[in-house]
Parts: sequence; C-alpha cells; structure tokens
Amino acid sequence: MAPQLDAYFNQVDSMAESFIDRLAKAVAIPSVSADDDKRGEVVRMGKFLESELKALGAHVEARPLGKQPGKEHLDLPPVIVARYGEDKNKRTILVYGHYDVQPALMEDGWATEPFKLTVDDKGRMYGRGSTDDKGPVLGWLNAIEAHQKAGVDFPVNLLMCFEGMEEYGSEGLDDFINAEAKKFFKDADAVCISDNYWLGTEKPCLTYGLRGCNYYSIEISGPGQDLHSGVFGGTAQEPMTDLVRVMGSLVDTHGRIQIPGLMDLVAPLTDEEKELYKGIAFTMDNLYESLGSQTGIYDDKERTLMARWRFPSLSLHGIEGAFSAPGAKTVIPAKVIGKFSIRTVPNMEIADVNKLVFDYVNKTFAALGSKNTCKVIEQHSGKWWVASPKHWNFTAAAKAVEKVWKVQPDLTREGGSIPVTLTFEQATGKNVLLLPMGSSTDAAHSINEKLDRRNYIEGIKLLGAYLHYVAEEPMKES
Amino acid sequence: MAPQLDAYFNQVDSMAESFIDRLAKAVAIPSVSADDDKRGEVVRMGKFLESELKALGAHVEARPLGKQPGKEHLDLPPVIVARYGEDKNKRTILVYGHYDVQPALMEDGWATEPFKLTVDDKGRMYGRGSTDDKGPVLGWLNAIEAHQKAGVDFPVNLLMCFEGMEEYGSEGLDDFINAEAKKFFKDADAVCISDNYWLGTEKPCLTYGLRGCNYYSIEISGPGQDLHSGVFGGTAQEPMTDLVRVMGSLVDTHGRIQIPGLMDLVAPLTDEEKELYKGIAFTMDNLYESLGSQTGIYDDKERTLMARWRFPSLSLHGIEGAFSAPGAKTVIPAKVIGKFSIRTVPNMEIADVNKLVFDYVNKTFAALGSKNTCKVIEQHSGKWWVASPKHWNFTAAAKAVEKVWKVQPDLTREGGSIPVTLTFEQATGKNVLLLPMGSSTDAAHSINEKLDRRNYIEGIKLLGAYLHYVAEEPMKES
Repeated sequence: MAPQLDAYFNQVDSMAESFIDRLAKAVAIPSVSADDDKRGEVVRMGKFLESELKALGAHVEARPLGKQPGKEHLDLPPVIVARYGEDKNKRTILVYGHYDVQPALMEDGWATEPFKLTVDDKGRMYGRGSTDDKGPVLGWLNAIEAHQKAGVDFPVNLLMCFEGMEEYGSEGLDDFINAEAKKFFKDADAVCISDNYWLGTEKPCLTYGLRGCNYYSIEISGPGQDLHSGVFGGTAQEPMTDLVRVMGSLVDTHGRIQIPGLMDLVAPLTDEEKELYKGIAFTMDNLYESLGSQTGIYDDKERTLMARWRFPSLSLHGIEGAFSAPGAKTVIPAKVIGKFSIRTVPNMEIADVNKLVFDYVNKTFAALGSKNTCKVIEQHSGKWWVASPKHWNFTAAAKAVEKVWKVQPDLTREGGSIPVTLTFEQATGKNVLLLPMGSSTDAAHSINEKLDRRNYIEGIKLLGAYLHYVAEEPMKES
Repeated sequence: MAPQLDAYFNQVDSMAESFIDRLAKAVAIPSVSADDDKRGEVVRMGKFLESELKALGAHVEARPLGKQPGKEHLDLPPVIVARYGEDKNKRTILVYGHYDVQPALMEDGWATEPFKLTVDDKGRMYGRGSTDDKGPVLGWLNAIEAHQKAGVDFPVNLLMCFEGMEEYGSEGLDDFINAEAKKFFKDADAVCISDNYWLGTEKPCLTYGLRGCNYYSIEISGPGQDLHSGVFGGTAQEPMTDLVRVMGSLVDTHGRIQIPGLMDLVAPLTDEEKELYKGIAFTMDNLYESLGSQTGIYDDKERTLMARWRFPSLSLHGIEGAFSAPGAKTVIPAKVIGKFSIRTVPNMEIADVNKLVFDYVNKTFAALGSKNTCKVIEQHSGKWWVASPKHWNFTAAAKAVEKVWKVQPDLTREGGSIPVTLTFEQATGKNVLLLPMGSSTDAAHSINEKLDRRNYIEGIKLLGAYLHYVAEEPMKES
C-alpha cells in the first residue's frame, strides 16, 4: 500500500519559511573546520543541532573525539549522535551528515556575505554550507518537525550521526563509527547519506558507486643541495630531468594509463551495464560547462560518464621541491617529489594497484640509467565503493523520488570519493544509499555556494517520503 | 723591466689589520638590494665607498639611476663612479664591482652574525659580502692607499664603477654603461672585473669565458579553472600530462639535449683547445664535494670541465601552477608553466637557439594530439662571452699572479653568466679580464659566506701588481 504523504507534503509547504529560517541560523554560524581559530564556531554549530534535536524530542549525545592529531591544543568537535523513535516494530534508518563547512571569505570573490543566507529572486539561497551540508542535515530535522506538526506518525526509528570535521579529513570519525557500529548504531537496517549532488540541475539521482583513490609520491634526489644551473648544468644528473621522464610515462594525453596490467584489474564492462549510461540525463555541454572549455577526452556522453565513474584515471598533480613561483630562477633542484593519484574502480584492490605502480615506476627509472635515487611511496589510499542499486533501500528511495519529483531518478556513480560511505558499509554491514538534495550548480567548496529553495523544500519532502517507502519495502533485493 | 713591487707588498702586509677593519665596516652595512626595506642601507654603503674614495683623493660621483622599474616608490641606489689619476702618459684601467649583497638572516643557518665580520683561527673571515663583492671592491681602495703610504707611484689611471643592484639583476646598469662608454669611461684601455672565484681553493685563475643563458617558459592550459581529479579525472585532457611529456623530451638523464640542430650551432672542439683542459687544477673529487654527491654525468675531469664551460646544457627548473606544497592534493591544474633554460656557448646565437626551441616544443606538443593550448615563451636571454686570453690584459694579470702566488694561473671559463662582462666589452670595445680574489669554498649567496684572510691580503697585492704589469705590457696581443 502506497504511503499517504499529502498531509506531510502540505505541512512542509506551509512551514517553508520557518525551514529557511532554520537554515539561515545554521549558515550564520561560521563552522569552518580547517580554521583553528573557528573551532569554537564549529562547536557552537554542534550545540545548535543538539538543542534543535532536543526540542524535537530526540535523544541526543555530543560525543567527544579527543584532541586533534598534530594539534594537541585543539579538541576535535564532537560527533552529534541522536535517536528519534524507539519502536521495535519499525525499521531503523541511520543517516549521516556534517555540520562543518569549507572556509569562505568575502575577498575570495563572494557576491554576498558568505555567512549570511541570501535568497535571490530566482530562489537561489546563497551561503557557505547551504548545500554542503547544512541544508541536507537540517532536512532530516525539518522532516521530523513537519511530521509532528501534521500529526503524521513518523514511519521509522531515525539514528543520526552528524560530524564536525568532514571538510578536514573526518579526523577521528572512522574509529568512532567502527566503535559504535554494534552500540549506538546497532539497530540500523540501512544507511542513507545526503552529502552529494545531482549530476545536472533538473533530474534527481540516487548514487550507488564512488571511485577510490590511491595517492603516490615519486621522490628523486641526487645532489646534496640545490645547485646553480650555470655552474653545474651539463655536469650533474638532474633529478627534475629524471622525474618528468618518469611522470611522463604514466599516462598519455588521452587519459590512457600506461602502467602494464593495471587495466586488467578493472571489472569487464557488460552489455547490460553499458545500456545504463544511455538514459542518464547528461550532455557533453554539461561537461564543457563545468570544464570551462571543450578539452574533453571523449566526444560522447556514454564514454565520458564511464570514464568518470567506472574506469580508473591517473592525474599528475604537481611537483614539490622544484621552482614553482612566477618568474625565472636558474636552479637545479636537488630533490623533487612528483605527486600523482589513480582513481580506482571494481575490482582494483589497493595492494594490487600499489604493486603494479611500484614495479613500473622503479623499472622506468632504472631504464634511465641515472645515478640519482628514486623512491616511490603510497601517500594514502581509499577504496572504491559500489552498492547494489537493486537493494530495497534504493528501491524505496526511487519511489520517493518519483512521488516528489514525478520522475524516475538516474542511477549514478561519482568519480570522486566520500570515504565515510565505505566506512558505514563495512562497519554496519548494511546497504548504504547516497540521496542528494542539491544540484550540480551549487558550487560546494567554491565561492557563491548556494542551495535552490526548490531543492531544499522538495528535498525535505523527499527525505520524509524516503523514510515512508523504506519503512514499507519488502526486506529483500527485488 | 719587471716592476719593483717589494715596497708595495710590504706596505700591504703592514696594513693588513687596517684593511680587515675596512672590510668589517663594509660588512656591517646590510646593503641587501633585494629587500626594499634595506634600500637605505644600500645607499649608506654607497656613501661609505664615496667617502673612503674621497679620503684617498679620488674624484667621485654618485650617479642616480632613477626609480626602480615596477616599484616606482623606490629609488635605485646610485652607481658610484670614481677616477684616481689623470696622467695622460699612463694607461687607464676600468674596474667594476658591486657594493650590494645577497640577503642573509641568522635563522637561515649562519653560524655567526652575517653582518658582523668574524675571523676564525684559520683566518676565515665570515660575513655577508666578504667575498661577494665587498672584499674585491675594497681591494682596489686598499691598493691605492698602500701605494700612497709606501710612497710608490700609482702605475695607471684607475676608473672605478661600483653598482648597488648586482644581486637584483643590475637594474639600470646596462643603459648607464652604454651612456658613459664614451664619456666617463672613454679613456679606458682595458677592463678588469673581480667578482668571481677560483676553480678550487689553492690555484689562482684568470677567467676568459662565460656561458650565456636563454630562459624559457612552456605554458599549457585547457580547463577554465583547476578541477577535482575525482570528478574530472579520465574525462578531461590534463595540461600537466602534456607538459611533463614535452619537458621530458628536451634533455635526457645524461644531459644530452634532444632538440634537433642545437648541437650543430656549437663551435667545434679543436685539438689545441682540448689540450687546455688537461692542466687545469681540478679533480672529480672537487666536483663531488661541491655537488654533495657522486651523481656527476662524466667520470673524467676533462669532459666535466668542457661540459661546464664550452658545451651547452639544458636544465628543467620547475613548474608554476601545479600543486607544489608538501602533502597531497587531488587537483587537476588548469594552467601549468614549465620553466627551463639553456646555457649557451660560442657560436650559438640567441635568435637561432630560440627558433630551434620554439619549433621543437611546438612540434612535440602537436604530436601529442592534445586539445589543450601550448605557448612557448622566451623569458630572458643573455649571450655567452669569450675573450682572448692572449690579450696583453691577460698577460699582465698572469705575470701578477706568478709574482704574488708563485704559480701560473689556470685559464678558466665559467658555466654561469656575469652579464655585465659582455656589456663592458661591447660598450667600450676593450678587452675584459675576470680576475677573481676569492676561492671556490667561499659560499657566495649561501650561508656562512667567507673570504680567507690570505686571499684578501694577497688579493690586494695581486690587484696592485696587476696594475703595475698592465702599465708596462706591450699594447698588442702576444
């Protein structure tokens, strides 16, 4: 039986101004986690959430995470965990979000005050954190309140986990999730995270996959100190010469990774999977607009989306230790460190990728016949994540999208990583769904971040509707 | 007839402490030309020279050079020009030096206060500017004073040109020299510059050649702004990928320049020239010591010296616009600028080198088939300089070295450039001699710069002796 959602939806519409006001209050707290001086504001934002949740009747705990590693004078902001509902006969859904934000300064080029929610005549609500991730976090609170005001029974028990360090590497969170998986989070039947974006601006999506990332350094050294190129040029083997040759051997202009064996690790593309990409609402113009140029590798949508989501890529990020300032300097750098990373996909295991990379870099360097020294190092790695979009958690979300937006959602993956996704999946053993609220033009992490009023208000309906559908879905993969 | 120098030499020895005191006074003035805040100290150092020269009876003028280009609130420090002696029957020698110094801070790692001359028990006189170039500049003043005190007739008319911006690109100097070549400097019969170093620590040298330097940028751009490698990796053509491929095609690990035609511009090596390198006081251990490693390209002295002095080299200096900090950043840089330079030698004309470089870079980039945009730019160029070491100016200097140091000097070239050398040669049309005072271990531009007491005191004798020999030398190439 389809859930009766009209009363809830009407209530959301009638409370829209109050929900926007709640978002304005949250945006006004500059909870910048990367800025030590703003740590008090991050804590204040956590307390704001805590008090709002308590007012809604939730059980709330602010859990300390100890000192910030490397900055022992700074406490990490607490994780705000909450439970709303204790009914043994209902499903329990665990939701995650974060209440910290990226840095923002007027002088970065914002058109409006970044920490003042400013709504323009097209309903674009500008402000740091509006879409990433205060809007979605408050979405869950707004859904609870609208149910209460409308007198509609809340369909599930809701577990909430809101952290305050996401924009600074989620320091301490993995250990916390692993520790609480069988404690505070033990009743969770499924997980939902609203912290990503639609692929475009018009069509909602559900996200079932993320690429992983293996990040490497190649350090090449020789001389005891930087040298003058006039005095030593032509007589010393130069680390930069070796490094650009090694880096130049990793990938070609067309994105083809040159490391032997690496592509063999990639799960074969099936015909069925190939079909999936045709229907996705995406055009090459969408790519060109976000690139700011027409310098794409592929000319068609399908191969572009597959290259972003389900094939690996290798990017060269830069070189540490060489001359990097404007102008001219006649230095021979003594030690240079090239940085590159590989975005990974099923079935590339981290250790297998590492071995192929190390072997290839070492062999390529050895072939140069250089007297310099080469070390290749794994800086950090995060695994890819792919969930089954046929799981009842996704089926429920798809129905909620259709109900609210009158359209079937695209099933998407992302080229980047949201490491907490895999952590939740592994710690709880439950299906994780990524259910975005904002759109591709929201400019998270950039100047003039915004959330469209429509995405916020319909998003509140969507989160509530999802909870209704997920409460009713048969507990099996359809 | 060999000059009678004993009285002069004895006088220098007896005044040694006073000459060291004069150097201490100069070192105590932090005349750092690169530091805007220290411009007053540079000017003060110029005034110190002016007053010392006046006290010696020289005609002195402080010549303004106008405002500093790009920093219109700052006056360039004046060029101090002076004339000592007006005897039409004597030769006139023009000497050049500079009274500004490189920056120096205790926290850079100096063992003693950089602006306090500190003499250790081995006679090493530490202090910024001691060897570069206050010691040599004061050498000329000390030579004048010792002649006066000893009652020895000064053998030449001395023209002096001391600038205060050498460590910051000699701003404004070329125009000044060109303008004064037929005015203040018009009587010059030859030029002598004491602003370089012995090849080692024991054997004096005369320097007759310098390499030139053509400095280039390769700018590759594509996307409208920096991109996230998760979102765009695999779908965008990345400027860094193209740039390292182009940079990697310029030179190999063994220093061999890969640009077709470039080596054809180099003057052929003659058997006679080849012989010159055998006798030079230089060992591979000297190279390894200054490199701080054994990562040299050649295993023998002759090829190493030729690679430094008489063959071109190509060094990759770094990349602007890419990620260059420690740590990890998953950026795809939108615009990257690779910097490299070519040290040039006879007969490589600047325009010919540029054409070969531009053609090769453009062709190599085109072969990548990239949609990105590549621009190759000449940032600046300075031509090589080679004088005839058989000129009477050199013959006189060689005799002075033998008189003072009891050894024939090595005839050396340098791998780096001292652009003012070529300017003086071209402006005056006279032979230019580089006559170094300090040794290879003096650490000019580094921490713990020093001048050995022995090099300073014997150097004062050498400069004076040179003036006596150059006064007597037959005016023809021997």
